[in-house]
Amino acid sequence: MGDLVLTTYDWVPKSPRGYVRDIRVRWALEEAGLPYRVEKTPFRARGAEHFAHQPFGQVPWLTDGDISIFESGAILLHLGERSDALIPSDPRGRSTVVEWLFAALNSVEAASLPWSIFVFSGDTTETPGRKHLDGFLETRLKHMDAVLAEREWLAGCFSIADILMADVLRLVGRFDGLAAHPACRDYVARATARPSFVKAHADQMAHFAAAD
Amino acid sequence: MGDLVLTTYDWVPKSPRGYVRDIRVRWALEEAGLPYRVEKTPFRARGAEHFAHQPFGQVPWLTDGDISIFESGAILLHLGERSDALIPSDPRGRSTVVEWLFAALNSVEAASLPWSIFVFSGDTTETPGRKHLDGFLETRLKHMDAVLAEREWLAGCFSIADILMADVLRLVGRFDGLAAHPACRDYVARATARPSFVKAHADQMAHFAAAD
Repeated sequence: MGDLVLTTYDWVPKSPRGYVRDIRVRWALEEAGLPYRVEKTPFRARGAEHFAHQPFGQVPWLTDGDISIFESGAILLHLGERSDALIPSDPRGRSTVVEWLFAALNSVEAASLPWSIFVFSGDTTETPGRKHLDGFLETRLKHMDAVLAEREWLAGCFSIADILMADVLRLVGRFDGLAAHPACRDYVARATARPSFVKAHADQMAHFAAAD
Repeated sequence: MGDLVLTTYDWVPKSPRGYVRDIRVRWALEEAGLPYRVEKTPFRARGAEHFAHQPFGQVPWLTDGDISIFESGAILLHLGERSDALIPSDPRGRSTVVEWLFAALNSVEAASLPWSIFVFSGDTTETPGRKHLDGFLETRLKHMDAVLAEREWLAGCFSIADILMADVLRLVGRFDGLAAHPACRDYVARATARPSFVKAHADQMAHFAAAD
């Protein structure tokens, strides 16, 4: 185990600030109280070194000594192996966290990301595909609302699964997509009230503001 | 560790056959030579027991003794802990597999799934959101093509990351989306030529055909 270094863009436009995915990693690091430093990679000119760490030219990536990891889910799982504050150590608890970690990305964000692309594009044309897509997100949120109405956190105690799920739902809420889903709204509110999120968010905002 | 039981639908319409996600789990189980049995849950009437195992009413789920796991990525990671044939045991190899496991779902399928919803809906209306979505997939495939042009498998040897990535790309290929990406096509061809895939595919087809 080596020093933890989180790399994110040097700058982004105003609109994604507070939502760049490095916030998921900052949040987990703050929650666990693990020491780390932040490095920058150019947003505008993404070179070979960037792609060597992140093959899609995205951020973040994390280095832990000589291991470099991309994908927020993979990074959070790696950090979970370094801290009991992020993932329970018993097999059943761990298994519950891992399935919800994937569900946040593959069952909820898989539906919310394309929806947010249309919303962000100001695209309101009702086509058959768009109807299908909107229905896809509504169904997933309905099921999440049923789950979250019955539990405070996804795996018994707060974990990396909540960091991912709350961050995914937070973006839906930003575009008013949680209006019919009160349990999802309450969950996002209690997750983002944690001091670890508040600090991670402030740090990301300050990081990008420093480049203006 | 207990008996492995894979649960999938009792029946699905003709068109998704060969592509239902239980194939990812069958493929991994065959690759590892782990004994398992398959159980059925109703496709048409999805009851409380179904949602207790899979909160979105989807398939598959896997039980391993008294642990029940949903999400194909989480199931494959669990199986990877039971067999060296699915995931390397050294920390760097393991870390590479985990990041690509997430990338298959969250960087590639996140773009291909909404695209396939539009294609499957026969929706050809060019709207701003749709253009953005098509470009999103093309960019992700272009980056994957660059990665796959230089390596046989994602993490040095065949692993669960290849099972997910090949299955995700296979569905893009089904709808003719890999025409401009020869390295992706070749990768899907060599992955699906493995006897473990051939058996998993035949078993899924036979499972649903038996219900007609």
